[in-house]
Amino acid sequence: MERETEVARIPVRATRALIADALVAAGLPQPDAARCAELMSEADLTGADGHGIFRLPQYARRLKAGGFNKRPNIAVSRSAPATALVDGDNGMGHLVMSRAASEAIAMARQSGAAWVGVRRSNHAGPAGLYAEMPAAAGMIGLYAAVANANHMAAWGGAEHLLGTNPLAIAVPTGDAPLVFDMATSIVAYGTVKKYALRGMRMPEGWFVDAATGESITDPAKSAAGVLQPMGEYKGSGLALMIGLIAGVLNGAAFGRDVIDFNADDDSATNTGHAIIAVDIARFVPLETFTAEVDRHLRDLRGSRLLPGFDAIRVPGERRAACRDERAREGVPVPAPLLAQLDKLAAELRIKPLRAR
Amino acid sequence: MERETEVARIPVRATRALIADALVAAGLPQPDAARCAELMSEADLTGADGHGIFRLPQYARRLKAGGFNKRPNIAVSRSAPATALVDGDNGMGHLVMSRAASEAIAMARQSGAAWVGVRRSNHAGPAGLYAEMPAAAGMIGLYAAVANANHMAAWGGAEHLLGTNPLAIAVPTGDAPLVFDMATSIVAYGTVKKYALRGMRMPEGWFVDAATGESITDPAKSAAGVLQPMGEYKGSGLALMIGLIAGVLNGAAFGRDVIDFNADDDSATNTGHAIIAVDIARFVPLETFTAEVDRHLRDLRGSRLLPGFDAIRVPGERRAACRDERAREGVPVPAPLLAQLDKLAAELRIKPLRAR
Repeated sequence: MERETEVARIPVRATRALIADALVAAGLPQPDAARCAELMSEADLTGADGHGIFRLPQYARRLKAGGFNKRPNIAVSRSAPATALVDGDNGMGHLVMSRAASEAIAMARQSGAAWVGVRRSNHAGPAGLYAEMPAAAGMIGLYAAVANANHMAAWGGAEHLLGTNPLAIAVPTGDAPLVFDMATSIVAYGTVKKYALRGMRMPEGWFVDAATGESITDPAKSAAGVLQPMGEYKGSGLALMIGLIAGVLNGAAFGRDVIDFNADDDSATNTGHAIIAVDIARFVPLETFTAEVDRHLRDLRGSRLLPGFDAIRVPGERRAACRDERAREGVPVPAPLLAQLDKLAAELRIKPLRAR
Repeated sequence: MERETEVARIPVRATRALIADALVAAGLPQPDAARCAELMSEADLTGADGHGIFRLPQYARRLKAGGFNKRPNIAVSRSAPATALVDGDNGMGHLVMSRAASEAIAMARQSGAAWVGVRRSNHAGPAGLYAEMPAAAGMIGLYAAVANANHMAAWGGAEHLLGTNPLAIAVPTGDAPLVFDMATSIVAYGTVKKYALRGMRMPEGWFVDAATGESITDPAKSAAGVLQPMGEYKGSGLALMIGLIAGVLNGAAFGRDVIDFNADDDSATNTGHAIIAVDIARFVPLETFTAEVDRHLRDLRGSRLLPGFDAIRVPGERRAACRDERAREGVPVPAPLLAQLDKLAAELRIKPLRAR
């Protein structure tokens, strides 16, 4: 970290309202705008800073440029008792994925498990959001997606052929669901954007220069580099497999066909996702499962520590704490983003964030 | 690497026959022994050196000690059109998992996708073996398991509460299936055993001392340390989630309940696995899928390289090359293992490896 820019705290009620109004002004029907605002605000609350209001200027630009279909006909084809293919008709990813998750939950209720593939969708925010939906319904949720830009290369490669293709897994507990959400890169690209926005330097090893193999630490120069995979060849292999099962399986984009939606506002991305729901009660009673999960989490949290660590954090723990804190204290909005949002509000002739 | 011990090359026909004869002599029915020998030899051929004939002395010891049920009644309960729970009755893991994989494939043929959970099983060899079974049937295969000893801690922890819980994903291509197989630790524990057997030092960072946090590089001293997760907190989180969905979901062991089967020959391990099969034809025609996978693999293999790399390797590529080479040149058996196998053959009064 070199310097931190000023970060305002804005009540989520205000950020959510701005998102919804902006999306309506950019052309979305009101209920769709409200649904997107709800999910983007959930990202803001749970600390997925690269996925909430941060994305609003880009989404609004894309809606205006015709990159999103404002009135999609999201079509679900159930191809078997446990499989469905959702065609998002190039609608906002949040709408498409909400629909796919509901379908997966409904089918898993009937068939025990369901695998729902999605094509012709778009960026849908943090992976954990969708894995959590089955978990909130007493199921196990798994979600994977093809990222909306290729920032990675295969391990050893210098070409942008892989995305940070995320994987999320969520299970219910006696308390809030346990949500594991990881990018297959060392860090998610949203984190790189956050560093850029806040004027911070990246640690060594996140990005390497495609020509020299040297580390790049200035986020503004990251375009000349390749984002490195988590766990070297392991993250690279996992990103590939996710690309095949969330993209190619559904007839969605992968590899050379992926559009960099950060640079292109009007082409259809043909984003692919996969969501899996598994009804726990078909294996063990739900209460047995959650009680056992709670017991194991207590064991992990109570574990002796290695020197240099102050606590064991289980997946989603920071997320739950973050949600509470931000619901109380507001969503952090760094000054440069606030300026972008003010500009956007003026363009769309809606009430600016700080007047809400 | 400090020193390499002598490594003999033995024809797979001979190693496979020794395995089968030893398992029969240790009490398994002939068809079960043949099935285990076949799968263990597949591990040997594909380079999973910690999972093939290497495990034979331990398996034989466990059979003799009563740790495996020699005549298991493997019971499959289909709880819904897409879910089944397999009770392995403490049989050899290879037998239990073969059955579970067949069931998953059969159910996915009917229902599009199937999630089969397994309890009361045992160590079953390399994860890729089982993910590959649906792929060989034109499906996507996913497999995860709770490892048979806790060598890892949660990220930051000093207690052995997590296993190297592996994840494998396989998809069909126009050629051999693409098989991704990873431990959630930096390396699989079998690799540590292989280093120990061959008298090699481990790289820094694989194991840290539980008290000091310092690296341990002598594999003989690894018991005093914790094996580190792949990608720091990511591997630790994934190992936990796999433990919950392959273990707890099925009523199988996880966390403190996991028995170290390297140190204990007679307690039931209650090993849990999960296998998922997805019928590709319910999403896109199989030929479309394999042609697209092949196209993307060509793109990846043809990619420009970073300085210091000589090729892009896609998952399972080394595996396929290794299989060809070993089928031709024989399975590598290091001298200390050969000595163990000679001793075992003498104890069981079967023909030794080099006389076959």
